Formats: sequence, structure tokens, C-alpha cells
Amino acid sequence: MTASALIFLAAYAWPILEPDLAGSWVVACRWIVWITWAMFAVDLIVRIALSEDRWAFVRSTPVDVAVVLLPLIRPLRLLRLVSLLHVLNRHAGSTMRGKVGIYLVGSVTLIVFVASLAVLDVERGGTGSIQSFGDAVWWSITTITTVGYGDTFPVTTTGRFIAAGLMFSGIAVLGVVTASFASWLVERVSEASDEAEAATARDIAVLHQEILSLREIILRQGEPPRDGLTDDEAPGPVVHR
Amino acid sequence: MTASALIFLAAYAWPILEPDLAGSWVVACRWIVWITWAMFAVDLIVRIALSEDRWAFVRSTPVDVAVVLLPLIRPLRLLRLVSLLHVLNRHAGSTMRGKVGIYLVGSVTLIVFVASLAVLDVERGGTGSIQSFGDAVWWSITTITTVGYGDTFPVTTTGRFIAAGLMFSGIAVLGVVTASFASWLVERVSEASDEAEAATARDIAVLHQEILSLREIILRQGEPPRDGLTDDEAPGPVVHR
Amino acid sequence: MTASALIFLAAYAWPILEPDLAGSWVVACRWIVWITWAMFAVDLIVRIALSEDRWAFVRSTPVDVAVVLLPLIRPLRLLRLVSLLHVLNRHAGSTMRGKVGIYLVGSVTLIVFVASLAVLDVERGGTGSIQSFGDAVWWSITTITTVGYGDTFPVTTTGRFIAAGLMFSGIAVLGVVTASFASWLVERVSEASDEAEAATARDIAVLHQEILSLREIILRQGEPPRDGLTDDEAPGPVVHR
Amino acid sequence: MTASALIFLAAYAWPILEPDLAGSWVVACRWIVWITWAMFAVDLIVRIALSEDRWAFVRSTPVDVAVVLLPLIRPLRLLRLVSLLHVLNRHAGSTMRGKVGIYLVGSVTLIVFVASLAVLDVERGGTGSIQSFGDAVWWSITTITTVGYGDTFPVTTTGRFIAAGLMFSGIAVLGVVTASFASWLVERVSEASDEAEAATARDIAVLHQEILSLREIILRQGEPPRDGLTDDEAPGPVVHR
Repeated sequence: MTASALIFLAAYAWPILEPDLAGSWVVACRWIVWITWAMFAVDLIVRIALSEDRWAFVRSTPVDVAVVLLPLIRPLRLLRLVSLLHVLNRHAGSTMRGKVGIYLVGSVTLIVFVASLAVLDVERGGTGSIQSFGDAVWWSITTITTVGYGDTFPVTTTGRFIAAGLMFSGIAVLGVVTASFASWLVERVSEASDEAEAATARDIAVLHQEILSLREIILRQGEPPRDGLTDDEAPGPVVHR
Repeated sequence: MTASALIFLAAYAWPILEPDLAGSWVVACRWIVWITWAMFAVDLIVRIALSEDRWAFVRSTPVDVAVVLLPLIRPLRLLRLVSLLHVLNRHAGSTMRGKVGIYLVGSVTLIVFVASLAVLDVERGGTGSIQSFGDAVWWSITTITTVGYGDTFPVTTTGRFIAAGLMFSGIAVLGVVTASFASWLVERVSEASDEAEAATARDIAVLHQEILSLREIILRQGEPPRDGLTDDEAPGPVVHR
Repeated sequence: MTASALIFLAAYAWPILEPDLAGSWVVACRWIVWITWAMFAVDLIVRIALSEDRWAFVRSTPVDVAVVLLPLIRPLRLLRLVSLLHVLNRHAGSTMRGKVGIYLVGSVTLIVFVASLAVLDVERGGTGSIQSFGDAVWWSITTITTVGYGDTFPVTTTGRFIAAGLMFSGIAVLGVVTASFASWLVERVSEASDEAEAATARDIAVLHQEILSLREIILRQGEPPRDGLTDDEAPGPVVHR
Repeated sequence: MTASALIFLAAYAWPILEPDLAGSWVVACRWIVWITWAMFAVDLIVRIALSEDRWAFVRSTPVDVAVVLLPLIRPLRLLRLVSLLHVLNRHAGSTMRGKVGIYLVGSVTLIVFVASLAVLDVERGGTGSIQSFGDAVWWSITTITTVGYGDTFPVTTTGRFIAAGLMFSGIAVLGVVTASFASWLVERVSEASDEAEAATARDIAVLHQEILSLREIILRQGEPPRDGLTDDEAPGPVVHR
């Protein structure tokens, strides 16, 4: 599915990036877009057919279902690229924060690229200020960072919907960045707390040994003194755990 | 009260969304607005009358009181819709974060819709850039996400007050989104810490058993040896808790 | 000092808010500004003279020192109003979060009011877009919330310095709002953790009682049996703590 | 290296800040820029040559390598100034939050200064709105705080790349400020939790003493009474740990 998503991205991006493309190529790209859609649809139908509780499966994969059901709304076709993020996830490091970092960089890059393509597709030729891919990327970055100079902005309704999605993505990005810093700082604080807990565990282990040694002493005292063993003989080290 | 709030919303929104509405309909809508206001007022008065400490009740429901006392300032009438959020709350999931998420999406949608209506109401016909509901929604979204392109902005004083409310809502939204991500990350960290605590509890339970078994041994040793019981007989398993 | 800060604020704000004020009033206000400055200076000098380690005192109150030393830079005179925040602090509730909330609302209100006055003072009459107090407040709010439409902005250098201060205040406001939500959510999580700790403390108290009762049993067994006391008599409940 | 970075900064900034500089001075500055680059390159090569695992070393210092490899892209030369931040780090206080605070202020100042220089360098003389150093600093501040009025913005491609870097820096700044406030609030909460842990540790220490005293009693009872030692003699203070 990843390869299919990449082919789809190329077929989607090419006619947008090169508006003077020969008509036959544009038609070919459109075919590829529809073929990749069909692949996604077949993949989803097979997975639904194979799952035990079909309705639960449909409810647990809303993005996949939306990808297949909403191909008529052009920008939404790009939802298909979410499957690319799973690849990122696989290549991410083992630590929690490393994963979040790689996911964040990957998502932001993909979102900016895809939003730029989609907005350029609907805005080019209109009266708006976004007329080249460079403008579109510049607009995407000013929007996702919530800077919003206002030198470039979409004027069509579809463009504004894409912009709204991008803005809320920007808020999520801000949230994730902040949360990562915050969790790093809080972890530093809780490290000290973890140490205190480890000390408690050690103290309890010492207590355990004391009680076991006490038991041995009592048991030996209860026995009738045999073969000249004296009571003040120190008990050997009790090894346990 | 929820139904009343919904009827109020419809009666408030209709004349704003359709400026060419026949005069009689506008009058009807105005009547409905005032009737729903009266319902809120009666509801509040009854609740105040029924409460034991009336002054404390008034102080604990500042929003409800403001809704009834401030109907003359038109945009503030929309405060009445806060009661819709209680419905959201009831339908929200059981987990803390699920609740916050549903509340957030519901609040943002309601705030954007209501702020768009209110700003359109005061700006339309003026010299400002907000002249249609589409423009108003677009402006609300750019404002609540703190992007602020500057292609659309209110120029009247009332519109600017609405905008200020929307901006501070935006900051609160940012805060809640970030806090949710942060608490999720911090929870991951504190899960490890919870495990350490569970281990401590287990260690203490083991200690308890050791001491109880020790007590039994001592008690048995103190008894005069009857019916040939030998001291090295292992004590039976101590069952407690 | 609070009264003095309020008088200063009034004397500072009046000529700015009413540009057509008679010359004699403007002169009076200027005198009051300087008199309140003198009061702050005397207050600071007395406190420095009374303190044991004068240099340490100066270093620990940088704001107070800056207030007295920098009166020539007009907008910085408003730093004097920081003393008003101490009043807020006194009236704030007892809970940590309540305090932060009241402090935040008070600070934002004061900062917006003061920044509006200062920017209006330097921008009015120039070529900029800020020409009335309403514009100035509107500009302050769009700036502190980092929305920044761009319909109003300062064009003088002093105005831009004020704006920079306001922007960084805005970032601090965002940070405090987010942190409050985050700490509330994290507290919910750590409540469960606190309960686990309380359970541990209870378990340890039970252990303590067991050991004390064990000690009593051993001591009684060691004693030579007097007055027909039998060993299997159960020890009475050990009351401690 | 710090001195070299400062000399580089001066030689880089001077021709930009004073566009009417005599040609010979400009040439001299250009020479200094290249000489400092050579110093960085030599420093890096020596360090790589001295390190045991050369490839691991290259991978662990990506910034240093980028500084040396990317001198042709003029704005990226300023990456060299990252080494100035290490100086800040050395002078920072001992507490975690103090360090973060000093680092933050230092980074923001350096980033704003350097971004202003770089953007002025590429924008001056063009059709954009950034034509003086004052404009450039004003633009940098409105961008890093994500306010983005839109009165000044870069129009060249290089300028837009610098802007994008500045915007993401702004998001990082927001994240760090928020995280610092959040960690401060969370620390206040966890202080109570630390106290509970300290109480647990004290309880366990008391338990330990009880068990040790118990052991002494049992050992004494087991001994045959010698030299008139009486059983009710209080055991001496048990010193442990």
C-alpha cells in the first residue's frame, strides 16, 4: 500500500506542478489516481471481508473508510497518504520521544507538501495570491506555524477548507512540540522520585533479610542443644532472592 | 433547556443567514428569541427560589445569571448556548482524555458557528471585509487558531469585542490541546513509576507473611512440648488477607 | 505605594486619552507623574539604606531599581505599575491554580491597558494606523494573543519596542494558560498515584503492630511463669501511635 | 572557537549593517569570513582524526559538519554561531529551570539578530518591505512570536527559507516557555508526593530498629543467665546505618 500511496502522490503532484503538461500525460495521471484508489478500495473490502466483526472493523478504521468513500472531493483523496506515516512509524527509534520527534517532522513535511499541492490545484488561475508552488509552500508554512502574514491566502471555498485543516494541524503541532519539551522536563523531576522509590525497595529488602535471620535464630534456640553448638555462634549470611 | 437553546439558536441564526427574509418572519424570530429568554429567566428564578442559600446559588452560577441579565447586549445572548455544552458532556466517553477531546471539538464548533453569526450580524452592510456567512466562518477560524491573515477582520466596536472573545478562546483551545498531549506523554512516564509502587506493595505483603509465620513459631516453642510434636515441623502455609 | 501607582496611572492616562486637554491640566499631570516617581525613588533609597547587605538588596529588586533609574524612557515609567500586581496577589485565593488564574487575568488586563496607552502616546499624530484608544486596545489584544491581523500596527521605533514586549508577554500568557490546563490533567493522574502511596503507608503501619505484638510475646515467654499465667493466653491488643 | 565565532559574526554583520562601506573593507570582511570558516574546518578535521570511531563522531556532531560543508549557502554560514550557545551553557546557573531560562533568552536574542542580518542581506535592494536593519529586527520579532502582522515579510526565496526557520524556532520557543511553566506547576504538585515518600522511608527505618531490638532480646533470652544479668535490663540504643 505504501508503494501505491507513493505512485498516487506522484500522479497527483505531477499535473499540478507542471501545468503545461501534455494532455495525454494528464489523462494518464488521472488514470493512475483512479487505479490507486481502486487498489485502496479492494484492500479495504478484503480486510472487511476477512475480519470477524465487520462493523467493529469499519468503526475502528475510519480513515481508511473515508479514503475510499470520499474520492469525489479531490483534496480529500490525499488522506490516502496517511498510510505513508505508518512507514515512518516503523523506521522510528525505540524511545518514546524519539518516535514522537520523527513522526512530527514526517507529518509536518507531508502535510505542508500535500496542502501546498491541494491549494495550488484549486487556487491557480483564480484571483488569489497563490499562483506558484513556491507561493503555496510559503503559504502552507506561514499557516501551519500560525504566523499568518496575510501576503498569501486562499480565496476559494475549497482552498479555505484546506487552510482550516492546516491551521488545526498547526495547533496540534504546537501541542506536540510543547508536550515533548514538557515531558522531558517533568521526567527530569520524576527521575529523582524514581530514585527515592528504589531506595525504599532496598530498605524493604534489608528488612526481609533481618526477619529471616531472626527466624533462624529462634528455630536454633528452640532445638535441644546438640554436639556442643554454642548459642552465641553468629548465624551465617542469609542469602535469598 | 437544551431544546429551548436550540430553538433560540435557530431563531437567532435564520434572519442573519438570510438577510432577504420577509419582515413578518424576522418579527417572529425576534419573538422566539425573547420567549426563549423568558424561559431561561423563569428557569433561573425558580431555581434561585428553590435553593436554600440563595446568594450562594447566584454566586455559583454566574453564567446563568449573566444570560438573563444581559439580553440587551445582543451578542451576549448567545451565552445561552453554553447549556448545549452540558449535553456534550453527557454524551462524552468515560475516560478523562476522551471527555476533554469531545468537549474541545464541540466547543470549538459551537464557538466558531456562534461567533460567525454574531460578527456577521454586526458587520454586514458596513465598510468591513466580512459580508457573507462564508467570510465570517473563515474569519472565525483564522482567529481562533491565532493565524490572523488580516484579509478579513471586524471594523465595528462590537465586532472587535466578539473577536477578542474568540482570540482568548483560541488561546484556551491551544492550551487544552497541548495539555492533552502533555498529559498523555507524562502518563506514559508515570506508568513505569506506578509499576515500581506495585512492586513495593508486593514486597511489604511478603514481609507481613514472614512476620506472621515467625510469630507462630515462637508461640509453638513457648508451649510445653505435648504429644510428641517436634520443633522442626514446618509451619503450615499462613493464609491472610 | 499602591495608591501612588494608581495616582500615577491616572495622571499618565488622562492626557493621553483626552488629547484636547487644557495645557494647565497637562502640566499638572506631568507634575504628578514626577512626584510619584520621586515617591518611588525615596521609597527605594530608604529600603536600600535600611537593608543589611545593600548590594544584595539592589540585585534582588531589579524591577524597583529599573523603575527609578529609567524615568527618561517614557513607556518604561509604566513598569511602576508592577507594584499593582502585588495587590492582586494578596487578594488571590488559597489554591495554587486559583492564584495563577487571578494573576493571569489581572496581568493581561493591566498589560493590555498600559501597552495601549503607551503605544497611543507615541503613535498618535504619526502616519500609523493607531490613532484612537479603541484602535490601541484592539491592536494590543490582537498582539498579545499572537493573532496579528495586520490592520493596525505601530510604525515608530518606540511603538515597535512596546509591541515586542507585548508579543513576548503573549507567549508567556500562552505558556501559563497551557501549563495550568496541563497541571490540572496531570494532577488527575497523580491522584491515583497518591492513593497507592497512602496504601503503602497503611501496610507499613500494620507491619509495625505485628512486630510490636511479637516482641511482647517473646518477652512474656522469657519471663519465669509466675502466678499461674499460661503461655497460650492471647496477648491483648497492642495500642500504639 | 568562541572568539572565532564572534570575529566571524562581526565580519559578517558589518558589511550588511553599513551598505556604504568602502570596497576594501568589504573585501577584508569577506576574507575574515573565509578564514574563520577555515578555522572551523581545521578544528573539525583534527577532531575527526583524533577520534577513535570516526564515522560515529561525524554522526554525533551533525551541526559542526554542516557548518563546514555548507559555506556556499550564505545564510547557513551563520550556523557557526551555534558554538556561542555553548558559552551561554557554561555561564548558566545550576538549577534545571535557570539553565533553560538563560539558554532560551540567549538563543532567542542570537536567532533574532542573526535572522535579521541574513534576511536584510538577501532582501535589501529588492521589492520587499524589509529595507533597513530596524525593519529586519521588527520582522524577526513578529515572526518568532508567531504574531505575523504582515506589514513586513520576505519576498525572495532565500528570505522565505530564513523565515521558515525562524517560524519553527518560534514554535520551539513557545514550547520551551510553556514546558517551563508546566514543569514548575507540576513540581509543586509532586513536592507533596515527595514528602509522602520521605514519610514512608522514615516508617521503614523505625521498623528496622524494632526488628533489631527484637533480635537482641531473643539472643539474650537464649543465653544461659550468666553473671546476674537480669532480663528487664533495657537494651542499649541500636545504632545502624
